[in-house]
Amino acid sequence: MENFTFHNPVRILFGRGQIAAIAREIPAEARILLVTGGGSIKANGVYDQVQQALAGRSVREFWGVEPNPRYETLMRAVEIVRSEGIDFLLAVGGGSVLDGTKFIAAAARFEGDDPWDILARKAPVTSAVPLGAVLTLPATGSEMNTNAVVTRWETRDKLYFSSTQVFPRFSVLDPETTLSLPPRQIGNGIADAFTHVCEQYLTYPAGAPLQDRFAESILQTLIEVGPKTYADPGDYEARASFVWAATMALNGLIGAGVPQDWATHMVGHELTALHDIDHGRTLAIVLPSMLSVRRASKRVKLLQYAERVWGITAGSDDERIDAAIEKTRAFFESVGVPTRLSAYGVDATTIPVVVERLTARGMVALGESGDVDPATVEKVLVTSL
Amino acid sequence: MENFTFHNPVRILFGRGQIAAIAREIPAEARILLVTGGGSIKANGVYDQVQQALAGRSVREFWGVEPNPRYETLMRAVEIVRSEGIDFLLAVGGGSVLDGTKFIAAAARFEGDDPWDILARKAPVTSAVPLGAVLTLPATGSEMNTNAVVTRWETRDKLYFSSTQVFPRFSVLDPETTLSLPPRQIGNGIADAFTHVCEQYLTYPAGAPLQDRFAESILQTLIEVGPKTYADPGDYEARASFVWAATMALNGLIGAGVPQDWATHMVGHELTALHDIDHGRTLAIVLPSMLSVRRASKRVKLLQYAERVWGITAGSDDERIDAAIEKTRAFFESVGVPTRLSAYGVDATTIPVVVERLTARGMVALGESGDVDPATVEKVLVTSL
Repeated sequence: MENFTFHNPVRILFGRGQIAAIAREIPAEARILLVTGGGSIKANGVYDQVQQALAGRSVREFWGVEPNPRYETLMRAVEIVRSEGIDFLLAVGGGSVLDGTKFIAAAARFEGDDPWDILARKAPVTSAVPLGAVLTLPATGSEMNTNAVVTRWETRDKLYFSSTQVFPRFSVLDPETTLSLPPRQIGNGIADAFTHVCEQYLTYPAGAPLQDRFAESILQTLIEVGPKTYADPGDYEARASFVWAATMALNGLIGAGVPQDWATHMVGHELTALHDIDHGRTLAIVLPSMLSVRRASKRVKLLQYAERVWGITAGSDDERIDAAIEKTRAFFESVGVPTRLSAYGVDATTIPVVVERLTARGMVALGESGDVDPATVEKVLVTSL
Repeated sequence: MENFTFHNPVRILFGRGQIAAIAREIPAEARILLVTGGGSIKANGVYDQVQQALAGRSVREFWGVEPNPRYETLMRAVEIVRSEGIDFLLAVGGGSVLDGTKFIAAAARFEGDDPWDILARKAPVTSAVPLGAVLTLPATGSEMNTNAVVTRWETRDKLYFSSTQVFPRFSVLDPETTLSLPPRQIGNGIADAFTHVCEQYLTYPAGAPLQDRFAESILQTLIEVGPKTYADPGDYEARASFVWAATMALNGLIGAGVPQDWATHMVGHELTALHDIDHGRTLAIVLPSMLSVRRASKRVKLLQYAERVWGITAGSDDERIDAAIEKTRAFFESVGVPTRLSAYGVDATTIPVVVERLTARGMVALGESGDVDPATVEKVLVTSL
């Protein structure tokens, strides 16, 4: 096992009716900016619950954070934070709202010239406005980690940053608030959470059997409850387990002390930026091909995955690996997420563009061993057509 | 799944050489009290590493915290904290030192008349001296939770308290510092960690498949690496996985949103208090009998345990449960932990004494369903003879 530091101070308030608890989590005198998306929280009753919990408090609202939150939009919120002396941010929405709020929190206190540097140059974030979250869409894990992904629309740059300064102080996870989500978003969330686990698990053996088993536990749970919660939004128990699994998939737990990959995410981000394909869907396109193309360096873990997660024990090494990848693909498709570029109307002409963009970003040695070069990315995308 | 709050802000510094990191974790101006046991940290080099890390700092030392730390001893440390203006406690040792340090932290700031009330009357702990830990014995999970168990020697009372005020700020887990431990303590630690999981897992189904699988992951890991690390202290990788598994067994993760038992612990504490049997050993005595006697109410989870953890699929329900309990017993014995009272020279005369003591404490309705009454405890202990 590699040395590691594990520290995750986010307070999780999980279950029915927990939105009411935010009243005691946010300092009484705070000047709050409620950050949210396009209005779904009015339809599903979350907005009313938040208003009730914060009755009598100083709450300003910022609406309109997009899926794949845009730098241009977020900078308007930064102006409000600065000009109105906001000292607490409350994200109410899905991963995009959370990620956007983390960026607002960091950018509002950024002391450099241009907050874009937080993303483009990984300028250090030494301070941030405190933030909390009410999560309404299980998928990204942003509710219990330090990561955020932001898109600059004018240049189609989709970039991430990470800082312990933007850990949410608390996150409310009430599965009931997610029951009205369209199935498409549930399918996307399942693909997203599943891939988060694979990025930390399907690398090479590192003497970490507990992290392996935790990762397999999340995958098995997603396989068990994913199709159920996709098909039946009325099943609270299945939804609750999906929500908790998605949080656990990217909160540092399974990644502690082990190598990590993330090449699938880097390629996926380019597909979203270029073709506006939902994040979870890009991962479902890239992951099966990524595993297939890189089967040599991932062999031991792929065979373990085949056996422990899918119960595949018959056939040669390659046959078991192929069967496991096929199962993975079929699982994504079973929750309504197509796994081929062609299903999204994207053809081979995009491949050199993606390769060129990654190269321009210096992303020419991705993956847990730094061996995912432009030629490998090309092969992966050809396999994904 | 039940509603829950999960919050664990302990910073874990895991791996070789991590003791050096405490220098930056403890405020520079702190007046530190180093709390430790009987001298093993001088033999294994840990004391030197701590001294080196804290060179030039204000460090007072308190030696002599016993296994099953005694109230009388700890109160002497409380006097030092108060009289010398100590404002940071550094526990260096195993679970007993950690538990003792938590009590010192709470007692030194206790505003009531008698700090014993923290244990005996569950008097609320509203403040505590900040503390950190260097763990040298994997077992109790105290390094990443809010619990502490303290014994009042004069009355043989072994009682616990729990407060978020005594979360360690950080805990260093360097597996190398545990390699010199005698095998007996490793066996005890394995039994302790294994039982911690069972107390949270072997109850009744609660719609929490991920927590179940996480629990099974820890058990499987203990089964895999336990006998290895018991037999070969030179195997760093096995020891590292055991250390991490023991921490995960009792840090709130697997207990979030599910019912919990803890009857085995309550009975075990009496056996330690009466007969000075090591904590982990008392659990190994009680757990198999507890599972056997309460098989009706635990049936579904016991069958799941039999299949998923031990691979037992043949036979009637009772046969599979018996086989799983027998495997559990054999596992404890395989790491040098006897599972019968007779092996410790204790006979049936102790049974009414234990029952009477639990009754006097009001512990007459233990377990996840409150159905462990004095008659059940008696049956369990008869089965443990």
